[in-house]
Amino acid sequence: MANNNAGGGFVGDRDRIRLHTVEFESAESSGAVCGDGHIAHIDDDTCIVLPEWAIRAGPRRSIYFDPAQVTAAIVTCGGLCPGLNDVVQNVVYTLTDYGVPEDQILGIRYGLRGFYERDNKPLTLTRRSVDGVHLKGGTMLGTSRGGANIQEIVRRIDLWGLDMVFVVGGNGGNAAADAIQLEVEKQGLPCAVVGVPKSIDNDILLVDRCFGFDTAVEEAQRALLAAKVEATSGYRGLGLVKLMGRHSGFIAMTASMASGVVDACLIPEVPFTLPKLLEHVGGVLDRKGHCVVCVAEGAGQDIAALGGTPAGGGGGGGGGGGGGTSAAGSAAPGAKTDASGNAILSDVGIRLRDVFKQHFKAEADVKYIDPSYIIRSIPTTSNDRIYCKVLGQGAVHGAFAGLTGVTVGLVNTHYVYLPIPAIIQAPRRVNPRGRRWNRLITSNNQPNLS
Amino acid sequence: MANNNAGGGFVGDRDRIRLHTVEFESAESSGAVCGDGHIAHIDDDTCIVLPEWAIRAGPRRSIYFDPAQVTAAIVTCGGLCPGLNDVVQNVVYTLTDYGVPEDQILGIRYGLRGFYERDNKPLTLTRRSVDGVHLKGGTMLGTSRGGANIQEIVRRIDLWGLDMVFVVGGNGGNAAADAIQLEVEKQGLPCAVVGVPKSIDNDILLVDRCFGFDTAVEEAQRALLAAKVEATSGYRGLGLVKLMGRHSGFIAMTASMASGVVDACLIPEVPFTLPKLLEHVGGVLDRKGHCVVCVAEGAGQDIAALGGTPAGGGGGGGGGGGGGTSAAGSAAPGAKTDASGNAILSDVGIRLRDVFKQHFKAEADVKYIDPSYIIRSIPTTSNDRIYCKVLGQGAVHGAFAGLTGVTVGLVNTHYVYLPIPAIIQAPRRVNPRGRRWNRLITSNNQPNLS
Amino acid sequence: MANNNAGGGFVGDRDRIRLHTVEFESAESSGAVCGDGHIAHIDDDTCIVLPEWAIRAGPRRSIYFDPAQVTAAIVTCGGLCPGLNDVVQNVVYTLTDYGVPEDQILGIRYGLRGFYERDNKPLTLTRRSVDGVHLKGGTMLGTSRGGANIQEIVRRIDLWGLDMVFVVGGNGGNAAADAIQLEVEKQGLPCAVVGVPKSIDNDILLVDRCFGFDTAVEEAQRALLAAKVEATSGYRGLGLVKLMGRHSGFIAMTASMASGVVDACLIPEVPFTLPKLLEHVGGVLDRKGHCVVCVAEGAGQDIAALGGTPAGGGGGGGGGGGGGTSAAGSAAPGAKTDASGNAILSDVGIRLRDVFKQHFKAEADVKYIDPSYIIRSIPTTSNDRIYCKVLGQGAVHGAFAGLTGVTVGLVNTHYVYLPIPAIIQAPRRVNPRGRRWNRLITSNNQPNLS
Amino acid sequence: MANNNAGGGFVGDRDRIRLHTVEFESAESSGAVCGDGHIAHIDDDTCIVLPEWAIRAGPRRSIYFDPAQVTAAIVTCGGLCPGLNDVVQNVVYTLTDYGVPEDQILGIRYGLRGFYERDNKPLTLTRRSVDGVHLKGGTMLGTSRGGANIQEIVRRIDLWGLDMVFVVGGNGGNAAADAIQLEVEKQGLPCAVVGVPKSIDNDILLVDRCFGFDTAVEEAQRALLAAKVEATSGYRGLGLVKLMGRHSGFIAMTASMASGVVDACLIPEVPFTLPKLLEHVGGVLDRKGHCVVCVAEGAGQDIAALGGTPAGGGGGGGGGGGGGTSAAGSAAPGAKTDASGNAILSDVGIRLRDVFKQHFKAEADVKYIDPSYIIRSIPTTSNDRIYCKVLGQGAVHGAFAGLTGVTVGLVNTHYVYLPIPAIIQAPRRVNPRGRRWNRLITSNNQPNLS
Repeated sequence: MANNNAGGGFVGDRDRIRLHTVEFESAESSGAVCGDGHIAHIDDDTCIVLPEWAIRAGPRRSIYFDPAQVTAAIVTCGGLCPGLNDVVQNVVYTLTDYGVPEDQILGIRYGLRGFYERDNKPLTLTRRSVDGVHLKGGTMLGTSRGGANIQEIVRRIDLWGLDMVFVVGGNGGNAAADAIQLEVEKQGLPCAVVGVPKSIDNDILLVDRCFGFDTAVEEAQRALLAAKVEATSGYRGLGLVKLMGRHSGFIAMTASMASGVVDACLIPEVPFTLPKLLEHVGGVLDRKGHCVVCVAEGAGQDIAALGGTPAGGGGGGGGGGGGGTSAAGSAAPGAKTDASGNAILSDVGIRLRDVFKQHFKAEADVKYIDPSYIIRSIPTTSNDRIYCKVLGQGAVHGAFAGLTGVTVGLVNTHYVYLPIPAIIQAPRRVNPRGRRWNRLITSNNQPNLS
Repeated sequence: MANNNAGGGFVGDRDRIRLHTVEFESAESSGAVCGDGHIAHIDDDTCIVLPEWAIRAGPRRSIYFDPAQVTAAIVTCGGLCPGLNDVVQNVVYTLTDYGVPEDQILGIRYGLRGFYERDNKPLTLTRRSVDGVHLKGGTMLGTSRGGANIQEIVRRIDLWGLDMVFVVGGNGGNAAADAIQLEVEKQGLPCAVVGVPKSIDNDILLVDRCFGFDTAVEEAQRALLAAKVEATSGYRGLGLVKLMGRHSGFIAMTASMASGVVDACLIPEVPFTLPKLLEHVGGVLDRKGHCVVCVAEGAGQDIAALGGTPAGGGGGGGGGGGGGTSAAGSAAPGAKTDASGNAILSDVGIRLRDVFKQHFKAEADVKYIDPSYIIRSIPTTSNDRIYCKVLGQGAVHGAFAGLTGVTVGLVNTHYVYLPIPAIIQAPRRVNPRGRRWNRLITSNNQPNLS
Repeated sequence: MANNNAGGGFVGDRDRIRLHTVEFESAESSGAVCGDGHIAHIDDDTCIVLPEWAIRAGPRRSIYFDPAQVTAAIVTCGGLCPGLNDVVQNVVYTLTDYGVPEDQILGIRYGLRGFYERDNKPLTLTRRSVDGVHLKGGTMLGTSRGGANIQEIVRRIDLWGLDMVFVVGGNGGNAAADAIQLEVEKQGLPCAVVGVPKSIDNDILLVDRCFGFDTAVEEAQRALLAAKVEATSGYRGLGLVKLMGRHSGFIAMTASMASGVVDACLIPEVPFTLPKLLEHVGGVLDRKGHCVVCVAEGAGQDIAALGGTPAGGGGGGGGGGGGGTSAAGSAAPGAKTDASGNAILSDVGIRLRDVFKQHFKAEADVKYIDPSYIIRSIPTTSNDRIYCKVLGQGAVHGAFAGLTGVTVGLVNTHYVYLPIPAIIQAPRRVNPRGRRWNRLITSNNQPNLS
Repeated sequence: MANNNAGGGFVGDRDRIRLHTVEFESAESSGAVCGDGHIAHIDDDTCIVLPEWAIRAGPRRSIYFDPAQVTAAIVTCGGLCPGLNDVVQNVVYTLTDYGVPEDQILGIRYGLRGFYERDNKPLTLTRRSVDGVHLKGGTMLGTSRGGANIQEIVRRIDLWGLDMVFVVGGNGGNAAADAIQLEVEKQGLPCAVVGVPKSIDNDILLVDRCFGFDTAVEEAQRALLAAKVEATSGYRGLGLVKLMGRHSGFIAMTASMASGVVDACLIPEVPFTLPKLLEHVGGVLDRKGHCVVCVAEGAGQDIAALGGTPAGGGGGGGGGGGGGTSAAGSAAPGAKTDASGNAILSDVGIRLRDVFKQHFKAEADVKYIDPSYIIRSIPTTSNDRIYCKVLGQGAVHGAFAGLTGVTVGLVNTHYVYLPIPAIIQAPRRVNPRGRRWNRLITSNNQPNLS
């Protein structure tokens, strides 16, 4: 069947994007332990070989569904992240652009459980009902963690005759999408399942960045700048900011870099000890008269655990999630987990605040900031807004192209489809030997703290 | 001696501003317990009769100091508040406009202790050194709580030959200014002491509002809007935001009004019980599917105390301060206090969060936001920036007019000088029978919660 | 009939607010030509005696309409101004709080002509349809200039059985409201007509400020700060910004004060000559290396007229309007006027830009900024948002109190009702001998330029 | 000589980045006329073959200068662009990190002419003097167009013993850098010349994007959202916004996409006729009741020229510049040019405003917005701030690596060095057959307008 895209601009079915774009002269210059740059660095024991090519995303000349017959559903899962409304809006816009009737587009309420829990029937989504939502934070569908009851979900896919299901979620949501796809296939249902990877922690493998990350950094660095103001206004002021990042310190690293005011940035990937940290902070206080520390919620869990305060409450954290191959931020056997299966972390922010107060006493004026949910709930920057639009469009193009079990993402500045399993093998992490981390620690003169 | 103000526009020495501008037909319509509107409502047992007139602020044709001979100092005290830099800048600008030489203007470092502690010598302030600081948060002088060692301070006033001292501070800072003025007078030193009242809680008697309050509300309502987004995105989402306000709920009330999204606003002046609150919140959750609660840090201290978590750490609170005549937010006998003499409050935010979680369990998705120091450290809105300018100018005009022991403020839209004791008798508080509170609870349908 | 306002907080019918709050020692200290401070300064030939008291606004215990029987309409007139949606929302909220049925509240489309032009039937306004509009710029009702066909309007008031009409508009809109009220009375129709004064130029007599003005200043000073950046980045950079202000320079004066970066502020109330201006600007360029000039659209019309470019196109101006008693900004006999009856001004911004380029040639790098409609269309600051809410509430309380031909406003920090004719005698203007203007020109060292 | 970069993280001298990352199945799917995707589309007659590899940017283990002996200069050229201060700051930071003494770093004033014009001696740049400038708009060095007197510049390079010159500029600035490098080489001077490509229009070949572009889009879409508010508030409201973009419509296209409110986006690369445009706009007005048009300053020059208004004055344009191979936006033979050699465009914004008014008369309420210099002068988004940092660092690493005649940029998400001539062959342009343009016109239903 032919696409009614009037303007041309079709993508070729065999167009593909190269994932390996760097040729390193040596293992050392690649910053990788494994001796090859074409890997994702997970931790010192784990390197994952990346695929070499990915399918180019975009509209195809030939499409595999008759738009007039399509019934589609979209669901948002996990913690809030800027851009959810933008994605939902553009899935709806693109479906109707193809010709899918408005009363055949369903919005599943409050995450995956919305497929089967009775309290909240799906919404019918129309161009009108999504009009303007791209300028608002949150998700008009509602969201929740967990709820991945695959049998129940697939039963509804069958019952409601869904041809397309779009799952916007993190590692957990994409894993669920993958399981749904397998079950759908097993049962012989003609339903395309397409993921849109969402992680405010930016810890999804392979993709250049996750939507909402740019917005989150913009808001996060406001908290760092506030901490700087507090630190410089107090006598030996010590500003401490906790940011999101269970397994991966991307927000902390990037916001620290953007703000230009952080003296010590602590992330899950780079261990530190209290004595070294206290020595560094004390030295900065002596030299500059004030100091700013940024800590990712998943950093220093060994240290945080001694404080005994669980972080679940105040944090706004818990965004990434649960691949389970990584030490930092993951649930130790027997540890408590939340509904997404994420370990409930000890609160490293509160712990460091108390440690700083105890150690420095009158020699530091400690101010602690935890911006938490404010970061998750703001509307998108223009940059993220456009990104979300294209992801939403791309997800629909993928489904119409007959793809299933794939997720859409930005790779080397191009939009591609990737098999879901490829992106959920492990959370993406900051490479402590990579250029980005090196740029930060050379620009803020941060020593080795372990 | 004559003022060199070229442009004219002098204020008359006997110009005065009327403080009583409302004529009530009855005690009831005044909303006052005491049967008269011309009072400040403190609490049900305390009403303070206001003066009827105040001196108009502004430049006088005749001035009482020879600008070329003047040495002046400015100090900022207590917690951060948006606008401190603006005030400092305009004190410096106005002094130099009068003709005070730039090397005779001192900036005292880190609050009152900066007069006598050796580590931090005063800065010399010039037009150049204050250029552009009005666009930055914090205080370029540094600030701290306490340090009101009057003897040591007056010793430096004498030693350094200070003719004018400008004290930007809260109730505590103004009380110190008053004590300094008395001691200066006692010792026969020719030094004018002028206060600029600072309270992010907006709890200074008589003045229309305190500088920085407008800015604080603007930022505070961002947190409320974020809570609304979180609440509507979760299934039975319950957003809880703690804002500043030890004795007085002005920020909580005003930000709630501005946001238009708050279902229950809890302030120190209006008691509530947990059963009533839980019933109201549960009802809202049932009706609307989500709920937003805003709590001032000094509200419900009886309830918070049961939780056992001191608030000193995470709050960004502690701004107002210490009149001691009021129950809510004040130190019980034997209670711990901070360096400003403020009682260390129990953390009502954390307490309510835990109570909500415990009570509603799966029936509410609780998200807690504590924007804390972010509110204190941001740059001013235009409105506050202008206000700070005029306060800074007015303080200098007052000193040159030969006034001492006064503070400058906005009263009925006019700038006036008030005797310091008049404004520090007690913290200003929200009148639970007044129009402002009534407007909020009628607009958000908040029932009596006690 | 009794008010069902559950919370109490009623205002007394005889509560009143004093308008004269300043006692001047002399005519000179009042800054007034007319020898008395209790006047509004219009221009050197015109002073208007202000009333001494105003009726306090707010809910009454006794109300004069049965809410269940009330049909009400609201209309927004003239140019856009931040806050229109907030006012509309709160009129609707308050009407329904009283008990007016939702299907009896009409929103007139696109200004006064919406009463009688067939293309755009009135909207039915409900709590749901106004939900969230307070966070958006513009007016959900639409607006337009002119359309004050009183007979046609009153015919619809009669036809539709309107008991209350709320008119949100400028001088023109309020004049129409007054005429409607007179005609309604003449025809014996039982309809209360209540105005809400709207002027982004802030040129309404008697009230402390107009809604939207705070927001407009906040955005306007962004343009001034941008001009400063451009000016300091160029060699002998000269930044020129045109702001709104047909008859009154309040926005230009206030934004200049807020920004702290303006070297010359030109307003309609203060004449200037080109030679003096060029000399001042040249001197600033020589001394500081750059210069920023802010000009109100109604300033220097004698000079602008020589340039021959009508301003109607590019300006975003034309907000105030048409009292006609003042020279600056008003239509000369035979001059062209817009639909509101405002004179079409010559474009002083373009004219000054060209004059500067011609005069300074390579000796100044001129950058011209005209933020125009951006200022009119942004959402409100918190400060304005609250103000609009209370105005909206107050307008409804006034109508239920049985008042008609009144307008609601803030006077000496209190909300009052004023007879419409009192506020539309003339546009309110900056007093060139007053403290506000004096504060600006002393803070930016601006000489007499005429 | 060895790098003293303590933290490791060196880049290999032979590390390289692949520029060709897409494999197209056909010429059609590449969207390219020339039948190959590995080209830059310039216009229908011009395709430029891209290099296949670029050198990876970053610090080298071996460096070619002794930092203690290095004297370096940095200059900013052309129109303002967000991020100039960030680049300057990080060049200074990185030079001093290498060990270059602070008194050997010169800041050239007001563009290239600052090398030789006497009025403005270079600044000495220190870590302290650049502290905090990353949070301010503009350039602390000053900038200007033109001034590329190569002989005079090289004379100063010799005279002052400069080892490194960093040129931050557009096509013009990079062309000058290239010429300087050739002359330096010819004269045998040991000076590395490194460019940092700056174009707010984003029209530099090969690089993913130019710094400041993200910030410019963020601000530009505010103007579009304002136009939408104006359009929906007026009866048949027609909002028109002129944005920057002489040869290339990237800002207009991207801001239109981000805003989601634009009905017609007009860019230099895509021709349109007035009848088609008027028909489309009229149709949108009929259907939706309002319409928003976004026009890039270089679009429709044939149409604009008929209006006869040169755009030089009001535009804030003139950012890109002068490759001269392209029809749109370029100087026709004999046309007037500015100091950068850019053609002075006719003002298409004013022209369209007048055309719309004339054509639609009362059938459209036209509101015209030209945000101009406001966009150029704002501080950077976090995204751009980081980008600028890395560019500044990369430029210094390149010079220390002994590279000269190169420019630093982001390519396929990696930082690289490119030979200057490669990026200035022609301005980069929007491909009318590419995916980006297609995404916009399918999302806003924009027909072919030519």
